[in-house]
Amino acid sequence: MGKGTLLYAQSGGVTAVINATASAVIQAARARKVKVLAARNGILGALREDLVDTSKESAAAIRALAHTPGGAFGSCRYKLKSLEQDGAKYQRLLEVFKAHDVRWFLYNGGNDSADTALKLSKMAAASGYPLTCIGVPKTVDNDLVVTDCCPGFGSAAKYTAVSVAEAALDVAAMADTSTKVFVYEVMGRHAGWLAAAGGLAGAGKDDAPQIILFPEIAYDEAKFLARVQETVKRVGWCVVVVSEGIRHPDGTFVADAGAGKDAFGHSQLGGVGPLLAATVKDKLGLKVHWTVPDYLQRSARHLASKTDLAHAQAVGTAAVDYALKGLNGVMPVIVRTSDRPYRWKIEPAALDRIANAEKTMPKGFIDKSGYGITAACRTYLEPLVRGEAPPPYRPDGLPNYVRLRLTAVARKLPPFG
Amino acid sequence: MGKGTLLYAQSGGVTAVINATASAVIQAARARKVKVLAARNGILGALREDLVDTSKESAAAIRALAHTPGGAFGSCRYKLKSLEQDGAKYQRLLEVFKAHDVRWFLYNGGNDSADTALKLSKMAAASGYPLTCIGVPKTVDNDLVVTDCCPGFGSAAKYTAVSVAEAALDVAAMADTSTKVFVYEVMGRHAGWLAAAGGLAGAGKDDAPQIILFPEIAYDEAKFLARVQETVKRVGWCVVVVSEGIRHPDGTFVADAGAGKDAFGHSQLGGVGPLLAATVKDKLGLKVHWTVPDYLQRSARHLASKTDLAHAQAVGTAAVDYALKGLNGVMPVIVRTSDRPYRWKIEPAALDRIANAEKTMPKGFIDKSGYGITAACRTYLEPLVRGEAPPPYRPDGLPNYVRLRLTAVARKLPPFG
Repeated sequence: MGKGTLLYAQSGGVTAVINATASAVIQAARARKVKVLAARNGILGALREDLVDTSKESAAAIRALAHTPGGAFGSCRYKLKSLEQDGAKYQRLLEVFKAHDVRWFLYNGGNDSADTALKLSKMAAASGYPLTCIGVPKTVDNDLVVTDCCPGFGSAAKYTAVSVAEAALDVAAMADTSTKVFVYEVMGRHAGWLAAAGGLAGAGKDDAPQIILFPEIAYDEAKFLARVQETVKRVGWCVVVVSEGIRHPDGTFVADAGAGKDAFGHSQLGGVGPLLAATVKDKLGLKVHWTVPDYLQRSARHLASKTDLAHAQAVGTAAVDYALKGLNGVMPVIVRTSDRPYRWKIEPAALDRIANAEKTMPKGFIDKSGYGITAACRTYLEPLVRGEAPPPYRPDGLPNYVRLRLTAVARKLPPFG
Repeated sequence: MGKGTLLYAQSGGVTAVINATASAVIQAARARKVKVLAARNGILGALREDLVDTSKESAAAIRALAHTPGGAFGSCRYKLKSLEQDGAKYQRLLEVFKAHDVRWFLYNGGNDSADTALKLSKMAAASGYPLTCIGVPKTVDNDLVVTDCCPGFGSAAKYTAVSVAEAALDVAAMADTSTKVFVYEVMGRHAGWLAAAGGLAGAGKDDAPQIILFPEIAYDEAKFLARVQETVKRVGWCVVVVSEGIRHPDGTFVADAGAGKDAFGHSQLGGVGPLLAATVKDKLGLKVHWTVPDYLQRSARHLASKTDLAHAQAVGTAAVDYALKGLNGVMPVIVRTSDRPYRWKIEPAALDRIANAEKTMPKGFIDKSGYGITAACRTYLEPLVRGEAPPPYRPDGLPNYVRLRLTAVARKLPPFG
């Protein structure tokens, strides 16, 4: 290929397998003799000219990235606005790219990142600079459109299904004299994909979770409480999986009631899980426990899905291939070609179909009661949590996660802003 | 051995490996041709004559118990009072035991259960009924005296160490533009063993967790906040592991401030994790996230410690051996004979040394700052989280946990109470 550098950056909430994508990107580029720089903390590293030379990392370290959670190069929550509003920043990015001979930019994130990659590619084209921009999918929320699923989601889904199943065994064992209701809060501000994954914990009528609360369905307290009570009466206990993003019929987040200030003016960082738990306790008088796994659900590389890992690596490899082919403004997406046996392939999709859009659960995935998942939903979800891909463990019992050297690239430009 | 039945029961909070003890008990008894009944929901099952015939379970199911979390026969939170106060109940227990020819009673639990087993053995002796009572250790709190450690703790400790390490990688990746402080709440109302286990996530000065709050050390808000701020300044982010049982200098639980009613009279089931998070947000203005894994930490069989599993099985096997030898009123305890290499053995210890006592962290295990663990503590903890013992997984990606048949034994007595 000759001259030119590939720049890779991570964006948004990290996942158990985003580093597996990074690993695949770097390995694919090395195989093609292409130099890879990484921006520290996503697009901010590019703006600040804060770049890492990945050629200083050993082959073993790059391989080990595939089993290391978090975001090895740092990620960011930072959205560039329109070309009109943030023109100076896009201009700066092009200057940094030119200074380091960046011809290929791979932005690994969600729909915001797809939007940034798309805008950058347009600006470069307009200015005559030869730059190929690729969006690489990643999000535990599984809310990107076009792609069948998002790398990162399958592992978070597996973590959720397994954790719900395990906690349910605990609750079932103790319910006679202790906790009757267990509330499990999952991520998903707008889409109920992870809540649905909790449903994989059991398939029988009385299996946990007996109740799933989706952000797609308006929360009805009276109906919810009646169902909890009825479940406890019938089963002896009840497991509730609730999405952080459930809303009242008027559209306000249920969690917001718990996120204000208390009588003393102190912040209440409740979350909807403890809030529902308190409601069950107050209104039904039942003993209740709750969990908020928070970041654990998206960083649990120890329980990654093998399918998800394969997806994460495949989109990384394809992204390099598309970049070097000059497929500008695309994202490698996962296309499902068969449910049973599960088969999939990677294809390029135009970023303008993906940027800023959001995929919620289809109606056919939530059952008539509104509290469970359908067979169609199971058919969709099951392949994504299939297979185990545990990290190697050290003799001291902890996973052998890698720490990169992160060698800085010398700056060539004056600081920005 | 001939005539006589062995009764096994589970008590208190269940663990990832209490069923491994049950599995070992049943296998050891089967090998000796001894019939095993199990009481449903602990001692309550014995009082109610609600018994399960374990001979109806297949050998494969009993083997599978060793990799299944929860409490397969049901557990209970129920403490019998003194022989004087609860005499009728102890009398009933003896009647049930006589009706089912129970000669050996194995009670698998913590110090309350050791107390119950001890009282029962005394009462039986006083009444001339030949009964051998054995306490079998179990608790994620690791607070039993005499034994070097408690089955169940090692797996919860491993879960905690791994989860803290994984979440820390997430926080480190995002800290530039997002969460700066992450609060991880662990179980341990009186003893800081699980909080200390969080310390295994890292060993370097700036590794997570940078702050551990133990119930053994009075909580000092100003000092804590200063340390958080100083850590964020130096490292860029800060991970705090906090025991649910931390107290103010006056001895009141810090969590109680968050467990009352809000201005509207609703229960606040906050937990100390979200409470500390709110404090950090209000006083330092830092973005904060928190997790309360709750039951997940004690039911995560998918991440069990191999050492812990071996302990859990060994105490079960030894308990049957001691029972059949007539070693009345003892508990098989774990004796550490060497740190490096880690070596241990099982020995009988008198229940009256164990009942109702509680082991907190020794002073030498908490460092001078009060916020970290010492090298001696690491030396103690590390062997307990060593080794992996994952369950088999089903083709659909979930662990293949067993569900027993739980065939009821016909009642021979009138109902009690």
